Amino acid sequence: MQEVIKKLLQKNDTKIVFCVLDGVGGLPQNGKTELETANTPNMDALAQSGACGQHLPVAYGITPGSGAAHLGLFGYDPLEYEIGRGVLEALGLGLHLTPNDLAIRGNFATVKYEGDTPIVTDRRAGRIPTEENIRIVSKITEQIKEIDGVKVNMTSGMEHRSAIIFTFPEPIVEGGDAIYDTDPQAEGKSPIRPTGDNPQAQKVADVVAKFIDKVSEIIRDEEAANYLLMRGFAVHPNLASYSEAYGLNAACIATYPMYRGVAKLVGMEVLEVEDYSIKAEIDTLKRDFDKHDFFYFHVKKTDSYGEDGNFDAKVGVIEEFDSFVPDILELEPDVIVVTGDHSTPASMKAHSWHPVPILINAKNVRAVGAQGFGEADCLKGELGTFRAVDLMTLVLAHADRLQKYGA
Amino acid sequence: MQEVIKKLLQKNDTKIVFCVLDGVGGLPQNGKTELETANTPNMDALAQSGACGQHLPVAYGITPGSGAAHLGLFGYDPLEYEIGRGVLEALGLGLHLTPNDLAIRGNFATVKYEGDTPIVTDRRAGRIPTEENIRIVSKITEQIKEIDGVKVNMTSGMEHRSAIIFTFPEPIVEGGDAIYDTDPQAEGKSPIRPTGDNPQAQKVADVVAKFIDKVSEIIRDEEAANYLLMRGFAVHPNLASYSEAYGLNAACIATYPMYRGVAKLVGMEVLEVEDYSIKAEIDTLKRDFDKHDFFYFHVKKTDSYGEDGNFDAKVGVIEEFDSFVPDILELEPDVIVVTGDHSTPASMKAHSWHPVPILINAKNVRAVGAQGFGEADCLKGELGTFRAVDLMTLVLAHADRLQKYGA
Repeated sequence: MQEVIKKLLQKNDTKIVFCVLDGVGGLPQNGKTELETANTPNMDALAQSGACGQHLPVAYGITPGSGAAHLGLFGYDPLEYEIGRGVLEALGLGLHLTPNDLAIRGNFATVKYEGDTPIVTDRRAGRIPTEENIRIVSKITEQIKEIDGVKVNMTSGMEHRSAIIFTFPEPIVEGGDAIYDTDPQAEGKSPIRPTGDNPQAQKVADVVAKFIDKVSEIIRDEEAANYLLMRGFAVHPNLASYSEAYGLNAACIATYPMYRGVAKLVGMEVLEVEDYSIKAEIDTLKRDFDKHDFFYFHVKKTDSYGEDGNFDAKVGVIEEFDSFVPDILELEPDVIVVTGDHSTPASMKAHSWHPVPILINAKNVRAVGAQGFGEADCLKGELGTFRAVDLMTLVLAHADRLQKYGA
Repeated sequence: MQEVIKKLLQKNDTKIVFCVLDGVGGLPQNGKTELETANTPNMDALAQSGACGQHLPVAYGITPGSGAAHLGLFGYDPLEYEIGRGVLEALGLGLHLTPNDLAIRGNFATVKYEGDTPIVTDRRAGRIPTEENIRIVSKITEQIKEIDGVKVNMTSGMEHRSAIIFTFPEPIVEGGDAIYDTDPQAEGKSPIRPTGDNPQAQKVADVVAKFIDKVSEIIRDEEAANYLLMRGFAVHPNLASYSEAYGLNAACIATYPMYRGVAKLVGMEVLEVEDYSIKAEIDTLKRDFDKHDFFYFHVKKTDSYGEDGNFDAKVGVIEEFDSFVPDILELEPDVIVVTGDHSTPASMKAHSWHPVPILINAKNVRAVGAQGFGEADCLKGELGTFRAVDLMTLVLAHADRLQKYGA
């Protein structure tokens, strides 16, 4: 669809606020979902006077990861584009990526040596404390800056996890993500030597192999974390930016690194937010409202409490967000969207495949069906059930930013 | 989607009962369809506490044949995969097929000879009695067992119809179904010589031509059935099995050969059923419930009465099935699906393009919208309107057999 949209774009000065309550979709307890249980007079009013429906993040029955779900919302078909695990890990640690970068997730592990052959005895190195991780990573980064002209950047994550970025002199056009994980997935086995499934990938894999050998030497005498397993080799997905794809000068208001990273991948400017609160995000929106025409506004805690199985706390975050809706409306955006990236029912303590309620409030809507903002109400709304990847087209239409298709 | 699903599969011990009431969708008489007229307290309860919607067997406005409709339900896009007429005819006669087989529908015809040239005078040989057909087919099979190393198997159908299977020494990878029908489609014309539209198909066509010549000799003196026209050259569609595609150990409970045959094409184990009754099918389900994790349960008569235009009898079959629902529930399946393969409105006496009501009852559903099981109710359900080919993904999701997509 992006090819079609590109030809139809017309500029204007409309402003769009695109609110994503992470994992907002739910399942009922006592007959009502989290969103239906929450007291949300402001969103209910927006739903009643807006266009409602439900979206499928990826496809019927498919439960999305956060990266895939956000790609869909942003209009990049997650069945076509992919954000690899390594890239997501790096973004989650706040690292920036370019098309020259290969990103990998590193896991410290424990091995014993049989002769020269390492045998994995603990794939997570006993989940070493994060401080230990930081100490060991700095030991490594002091000694390895570059391999064969490829810059190496390693950053500690939590416990045994880390992100490694190899920066090549040129963009990695092909093969960078066609390298097999070195993690043998079971204890008692040898780590797998890095290999690529095509000649281009093999060249990259050779650099990785040298890195692993050097790291093994450096940390050989560590008690627990004496080896590094590498997973999720991934290159920058090289997505068209929001400006190229939609003609939008877009900004991201999110507090968690991963979401800020995904927004950066599609060329949004990531705005500073004072702290992790919704209040601080609203302050940012007010502060920079004049500077952009599209605002991706992300609320994380709905998902976190869903994953915790905490129905009431999820309800609480939804109510908290609702209390700030008047502040958003005061800015008089032309289009306001409220939805989630996927469902995270508290009863499942996990992401799920269930459709996600959505409301679009703007000038030209029919405003039929939904009496409030909730799963059952949105099901009756005029937008019906549609794939998330179609949402951005609808948003642009409601912002009067698309010309007629065909003569 | 099957490629995506394959990567996400996770095994568990959930059990799925997938009930297909053939042609169940209908059109209203006195304001209610067959399904809505039927008194179905058990399915109504399942719908009310389950997820409902309606599926499009192939696409909007497309009326499917039985083979295509079942492919869709089983998750093989009927717009991509095809079960050829010859294969369907063979399956309908209870024949088994392998990838080495070329299946063809044979029609006995009457010809007169002008010199050596046969001219078709009756394309159906006056619809000879089936007993005549059987006598003539055995005359042929006694004399033709093999042609050029290709085994020949011919089986009588009803009236002038038969199925012919050529078994080649190797799988027919290409071209087997690229042979043109020999039926000239009009009386007064000569049968068309078998030709293929590529060199591989031409080789196969040469074998067919020899077969036709031999048959012509053998039955030349028959009064009515003195020639054999051949249609629907088709090879085994070589579909991924349920085990490969979905990790399911699937079984088929159906009484009619064609449905048993289609189930076999996707690698289901076809279970013995005592007689043609729904009761006998339920007995089979109970008997073998421990041995499989997916049960395709087919009820034929809904469609038969629809084709007859017998509204009340179709209602009766639906009510009969409903009376056995408690027996199914007693087995405590994790997921129960009730739907049809297509609509067969009694008022149309034929298959139709209308969407088909569906209910999925399982643990993680929203259970909103539908108050009972019928076309109008399902339209309000949380699943919305979707293509049948997406159903298996939903079923696997509800059986907790799919991991998260993307990082």
